[in-house]
Amino acid sequence: MVTIKDVARLAGVSPSTASRALHDNSMISQATKERVRQAMEELHYSPNYSAQNLVKRQSNMVGIVLPVRESQESLGNNPFFMQMIQGISGVCTDKDQMVSLATGRTEEELLTNIKNLIRSGNIEKFIFLYSKADDPILKYIKGQEVTCVVVGESYDKDPSKIRFVDNDNVGASQDATSFLIDKGYTKIVYAYTDMDELVQASRYMGYSSIMQAQHFSTKTLSLSRVDDRLNRQELEAFLAKYAETEAFVACDDIMAIRLQRLFKNLGISSRRYAIISFNNSMVAELASPSLTSVEVFPYQLGRNAAEVLLNGEEAADRLLIPHKIIERDSTPKLADG
Amino acid sequence: MVTIKDVARLAGVSPSTASRALHDNSMISQATKERVRQAMEELHYSPNYSAQNLVKRQSNMVGIVLPVRESQESLGNNPFFMQMIQGISGVCTDKDQMVSLATGRTEEELLTNIKNLIRSGNIEKFIFLYSKADDPILKYIKGQEVTCVVVGESYDKDPSKIRFVDNDNVGASQDATSFLIDKGYTKIVYAYTDMDELVQASRYMGYSSIMQAQHFSTKTLSLSRVDDRLNRQELEAFLAKYAETEAFVACDDIMAIRLQRLFKNLGISSRRYAIISFNNSMVAELASPSLTSVEVFPYQLGRNAAEVLLNGEEAADRLLIPHKIIERDSTPKLADG
Repeated sequence: MVTIKDVARLAGVSPSTASRALHDNSMISQATKERVRQAMEELHYSPNYSAQNLVKRQSNMVGIVLPVRESQESLGNNPFFMQMIQGISGVCTDKDQMVSLATGRTEEELLTNIKNLIRSGNIEKFIFLYSKADDPILKYIKGQEVTCVVVGESYDKDPSKIRFVDNDNVGASQDATSFLIDKGYTKIVYAYTDMDELVQASRYMGYSSIMQAQHFSTKTLSLSRVDDRLNRQELEAFLAKYAETEAFVACDDIMAIRLQRLFKNLGISSRRYAIISFNNSMVAELASPSLTSVEVFPYQLGRNAAEVLLNGEEAADRLLIPHKIIERDSTPKLADG
Repeated sequence: MVTIKDVARLAGVSPSTASRALHDNSMISQATKERVRQAMEELHYSPNYSAQNLVKRQSNMVGIVLPVRESQESLGNNPFFMQMIQGISGVCTDKDQMVSLATGRTEEELLTNIKNLIRSGNIEKFIFLYSKADDPILKYIKGQEVTCVVVGESYDKDPSKIRFVDNDNVGASQDATSFLIDKGYTKIVYAYTDMDELVQASRYMGYSSIMQAQHFSTKTLSLSRVDDRLNRQELEAFLAKYAETEAFVACDDIMAIRLQRLFKNLGISSRRYAIISFNNSMVAELASPSLTSVEVFPYQLGRNAAEVLLNGEEAADRLLIPHKIIERDSTPKLADG
C-alpha cells in the first residue's frame, strides 16, 4: 500500500511537509503543494480515511436525514427527495466527502440510527431533508457536537447551531395566487393535507396574504393522503356549499392530481376548475389537463444545502432558492361569465 | 467517553472477554454475551467504528451504486430507485450497517468515487442498483476485495464474486403479453427506449416468446427518452404502416404515459389502443385511462439485495422476486370487430 512517505519521497520533500501539503496547510507554498499533489496522483495515493478519522476525530462523511415514513411508497413517489440527494451528492463528491443516509420507519428507529452514527465518530455533519415543528430528532442533534443544515422552513429562533436552506414558499405561493388572479379568478380555494408540515403552512400563508390584500375571501379544503372515498365525500360537500368556487391553489402536484381524479369520479369536467400547484414534478406534465406548477429546483436546493454545510461559517443563516411558474393547460384565462 | 473497559467492569468480566462477546466469539457463553450486551446498553456504549475498521480492516458500511445519469431529473422521476434504497436501508439498520451512496454524473466520476471508497478502507460491500452490459464500474469491482450484489439481470457466466437479485422480467413480460391475448388482442407491439438496458431486453424476450408460441407476428416501436417531436413522427409513421395495431406492451410506466400523450397530440382517442406496462408506479394510477401495470415490488427487491449481501454464503447466486399484474382501465376486453 502506498503511504505518505512514498509520496514525500517522489515529491522530494519530508513526510511531514507532504502531510501538511495534503492538509492544505498555509505554511506550505503553492509550488510544493502542486508537487505533492502530482506525486499523489502518480502513485494513486489515497489518504486512509479511517486512520485520519481516528487521529483528527474529524469525519469525511455527510449524513442525509430522510423524513420518517411508515409507508414504503411515499418517499419514492415524491421525486423531490431523490433530486435533492443527487444535488447533495454532486457537491460532496467535489469536496471528497462521502454521503450516508439516515432513515427510519419510526421516529425511535431514526433517532437510534443517528445516535449510532454520531457516537461511532463517523458522522459529524448532517443535512435534514425535512422540517417539522418540535422534531425530537433535531432536538437531539442540537445537543451534539455536530454541524447541521435543514432543508425547510426556519422555525428556530436561535440559529446558532443550525442553518436553513429553502425555497421562499410564502413568496412562491403569493406568486401562484397572483397568477390565478391575473387570469381573472377570484373565488380561489387552498387545498392541503397537513398544516403541521411547515411547507404546507407557508404556502397557505402566501395564498391568504394575497387574497386578503385583494379583499377576496379565503377558503381551505383539507383532504386525506390515503382515503379517497372520504375525500370524495369531502369534496362533494365542499362544492355543494361553495358553488361559486372557480380555482384551486393545491399544496403540491400530488394534491392537484388527486383533485383531478376526484372531479372525474364525481362526473365533473377536469376543465371546470383552474388548478395551480407546486414542485413541477413529472406528474404535472402528465396530468390531464397538464398542470401549471411552480418549479422549486430540488437539485439546486440539495447542492446549496451541501455547500452551506461544507463551507461552514461563510454562509448566511438562511439561504433561499428561487422559484418559477411553469404555465400549462390547467390555468386558462377565465372566460367572461 | 465510555470504553470497553467500563463495559467489562459493569458486566464483571475481563476487557478481553467483553471484547470477544462484542464480536460474537463462539468461545464466549450466551449468558456472558447477554451480560455484556446489557452493560453496553446501560452505559450507552457504542464501539468506535473508525478504530475497529482500522484494526480489523472490516467495514460496517454498505455502498449503494446508482446508475450514471447526466440529467438531474431522470433518477428522481423514477420512484423505483428510492423505494429500493428504502428497502436496503431497512435491512442495514437491523444489521447495524450504515448505508452510503456512490453516484456520478459520468462513468469516470462514478468510478473515481468507488475507487476512493474502496481504497480508503471504508466500504467493502456494494449493491448495484442497475445492470448494464460491459459495465466498466462492475469490471473494476470484480478485481477488488469486495463483495457485491447486483439488482438486475445476471449477464455474468462466472458468478463467483457477484450475486444477482432481480425480478423475473422475462416471466413478467410473458404474463403481461398473455394477459392482453386473453383479453382478445393479437396485434400487439412492444415499445421501448434502449435495448442495451437489460431489463428492457428481457421484457422484449418475454413478449416475443409468447407471441411466437401463439404464431402472432412481433413488432417493435423504439421511442426516444427526450425528443417528443421526433417521437410524434415515429409513432405517426408506425401507425400508418401497421394500421392493424391493437395494443402495446410498454417497457415501463413512463413509456406508457409517453404513448398516451403522443396519441393525444395526434388526435387519437386515448382508448383506441390497449396498453399494459411495468413497475406500477404512481403514474400508472394517475394516467388517463389508468394503466394496467405489472407490480415488481422494488422495496422488497432492495430488502432482498441487502439480505443476500449481508448473509453472505447462505444465499443463492440468483434470487428472483415475484411480480403481480394490477389491472386498471387501459386494457378492456377487445370489443368484437
